[in-house]
Amino acid sequence: MEAPVKDVDNLDLNSDSEDVVNPWNVTSASEKGVDYDKLIKRFGSCRIDSDLISRFEQITGKKVHHLLRRGVFFSHRDLDFILNVYEQKKPFYLYTGRGPSSEALHVGHLIPFIFTKWLQDVFDVPLVIQLTDDEKFLWKDLKLEEANNLSFINAKDIIACGFDPNKTFIFSNLNFIGQCPEFYRNIVRIQKCVTFNQVKGIFGFGDSDVIGKIAFPAVQAAPALSSSFPFIFGQTSNVPCLIPCAIDQDPYFRMTRDVVPRLNYHKPALVHATFIPSLQGASTKMSASDSNSAIFLTDTPKQIKNKVNKHAFSGGQPTIEEHRSKGGDCSVDVSYQYLKFFLEDDEKLESIGKQYASGELLTGELKKILIETLQPIISEHQMRRSKITDEDVRLFMTPRALNFKFN
Amino acid sequence: MEAPVKDVDNLDLNSDSEDVVNPWNVTSASEKGVDYDKLIKRFGSCRIDSDLISRFEQITGKKVHHLLRRGVFFSHRDLDFILNVYEQKKPFYLYTGRGPSSEALHVGHLIPFIFTKWLQDVFDVPLVIQLTDDEKFLWKDLKLEEANNLSFINAKDIIACGFDPNKTFIFSNLNFIGQCPEFYRNIVRIQKCVTFNQVKGIFGFGDSDVIGKIAFPAVQAAPALSSSFPFIFGQTSNVPCLIPCAIDQDPYFRMTRDVVPRLNYHKPALVHATFIPSLQGASTKMSASDSNSAIFLTDTPKQIKNKVNKHAFSGGQPTIEEHRSKGGDCSVDVSYQYLKFFLEDDEKLESIGKQYASGELLTGELKKILIETLQPIISEHQMRRSKITDEDVRLFMTPRALNFKFN
Repeated sequence: MEAPVKDVDNLDLNSDSEDVVNPWNVTSASEKGVDYDKLIKRFGSCRIDSDLISRFEQITGKKVHHLLRRGVFFSHRDLDFILNVYEQKKPFYLYTGRGPSSEALHVGHLIPFIFTKWLQDVFDVPLVIQLTDDEKFLWKDLKLEEANNLSFINAKDIIACGFDPNKTFIFSNLNFIGQCPEFYRNIVRIQKCVTFNQVKGIFGFGDSDVIGKIAFPAVQAAPALSSSFPFIFGQTSNVPCLIPCAIDQDPYFRMTRDVVPRLNYHKPALVHATFIPSLQGASTKMSASDSNSAIFLTDTPKQIKNKVNKHAFSGGQPTIEEHRSKGGDCSVDVSYQYLKFFLEDDEKLESIGKQYASGELLTGELKKILIETLQPIISEHQMRRSKITDEDVRLFMTPRALNFKFN
Repeated sequence: MEAPVKDVDNLDLNSDSEDVVNPWNVTSASEKGVDYDKLIKRFGSCRIDSDLISRFEQITGKKVHHLLRRGVFFSHRDLDFILNVYEQKKPFYLYTGRGPSSEALHVGHLIPFIFTKWLQDVFDVPLVIQLTDDEKFLWKDLKLEEANNLSFINAKDIIACGFDPNKTFIFSNLNFIGQCPEFYRNIVRIQKCVTFNQVKGIFGFGDSDVIGKIAFPAVQAAPALSSSFPFIFGQTSNVPCLIPCAIDQDPYFRMTRDVVPRLNYHKPALVHATFIPSLQGASTKMSASDSNSAIFLTDTPKQIKNKVNKHAFSGGQPTIEEHRSKGGDCSVDVSYQYLKFFLEDDEKLESIGKQYASGELLTGELKKILIETLQPIISEHQMRRSKITDEDVRLFMTPRALNFKFN
């Protein structure tokens, strides 16, 4: 148990590339954003290719979600294993999460939850959602009570994505670790398998980092062990797990996948999303700490309109004449990129892309389509969220059996 | 909150002296054992002098325990503050603990508990006892379930020292952290205030140590905050705390004392004990992992007799004639040293010392006195322990209000 983790995953995330991708920082020197092909190589994950998508559709009998077929979820680890598990009618579960660093979520935060909700509907499996308020307390200039309170506020937005309380357990670390000895025990088991050298290599921690940060990766790893939730899966369970997340979270789960076989658990499978660009362009991701970079879930229709018109980076030409003759560049146009995330209709998206590239569609017109796509999505979210009560949140966050039987 | 701890406590424990004293290792090159005067200087604690003992007796109206008047508890931090608190009829509490590394406790393990029991009787204050089964799991080649189980086995020996369940809460980390969010929250608060550099300096951790070890010192620190036990002291309490422990545990509490003022808590006060020597002599302490070095609480009267006669290092002379003329050396004689711990009668101890030093008392006779002192102590402990039921252990280990009112 005390042997060190192999150093195969000990990659310097920031070397050999101008892209910086880690749980605390995502930036690219290129206006097209992160080079995801290079990232797949660096991280050692696998591209989600058309064969895997076909197999997904064949096994589930359903057309895959637009976020999958358009390559927003573009990379994976062992997704084929999970599809086999499902094909054999064996159980698995979904695990995702969020670091509650601010009250206001932006539309980018919704992406993993929208996709996770779809996965849960397709596979009909339990879902656990970790709110890492302890992480935010450790990393940010926040009081513990503030970080904990943000968990509950963010939980309402997550619940508003339409999750079913009979199938979904949401937990805040600062609450749940004190409610479930099995969870803490798995954290300590993982902490016995990982050295400082390893977290230094994986996360770039240094000697002047506080010990809470150094210990934290085990807290994000532990929900990948089904026995961390004895009330759902049973105390001795080893139910496989699929983690949908943005690719910046992969370092946590590379570590997890290295450790858990030594504890006799399945390695968690992963599907990785690209980042949603900031309004200013793909070289940075949308960030809640820069309000001009993001469309928030609390924005009014007017705010959405103004932000898109004012800030959304355009791939169009400087003059109408030039645009008509040369056409726009969809690959850097933020409005077009956002439509890939939020406009479900494939044909419409394709035709918009063609029209914009040909110069037929002007930037102002493209922005209008985005505005009219986002406004109802956000209004509907706000309406659903307004109906979520504190009692609903308490229900989702109470450790309890879900409507699934294991064994 | 994120500013680093000052490095004033960042002492290399093993420098400038042949004595090694840290939580995992105690050895001395001298046959007289650890030089405690030097240790007090190195650790920056205070000698418990006759003035402080007089003040103790004056304030409590009681003669101090023989372990205190004979200098077994020899060093302190802020004991005078605790005496002032008591004098002002303000509340405080006691905190001590044990690392459950083996089933069998030896007589040395009893010392802090015997003294703590006496302190509790004198002051009539709540007591919390931490069983660091997570620490033992992290440091030893033990399964988590084994370490956790040792907690319960060791708790019986602790309870057999006569603690009152109305005034005493015993907890295993592997259980309690999963039962009390406030405890975990204090652990994380402490972990935010301590850097890897600091635990490196204080405990000698290195890059190849597992992150569980690096994080652990905060777990031993947290019970020094009364709010870790909301069911006893209330959620927002700041009740001062006195920690009786062997001096090898001081590094944990130097760290704690450095951190907790930043969290707006009182620094814990400490009283430090010397180590009980091994049967082979004072250069090592009694160890449960070397059965010939220790008198176990499970030893039969015959085993005690044999061990003392066979192994107890003698300060006597090679021949009876020489002994009669030169006398024995009490300062290195293990039997005499043990009598200082276990023979309550001061006059008898003094007269034995004089007789042995003069050569009047032979080593065999001295050993017989020790044997006859230890046998009833251990038999009585065994009798009390045999009556402790699993139900008793559960009661002591259930988080609950004690018979004290705060505020």
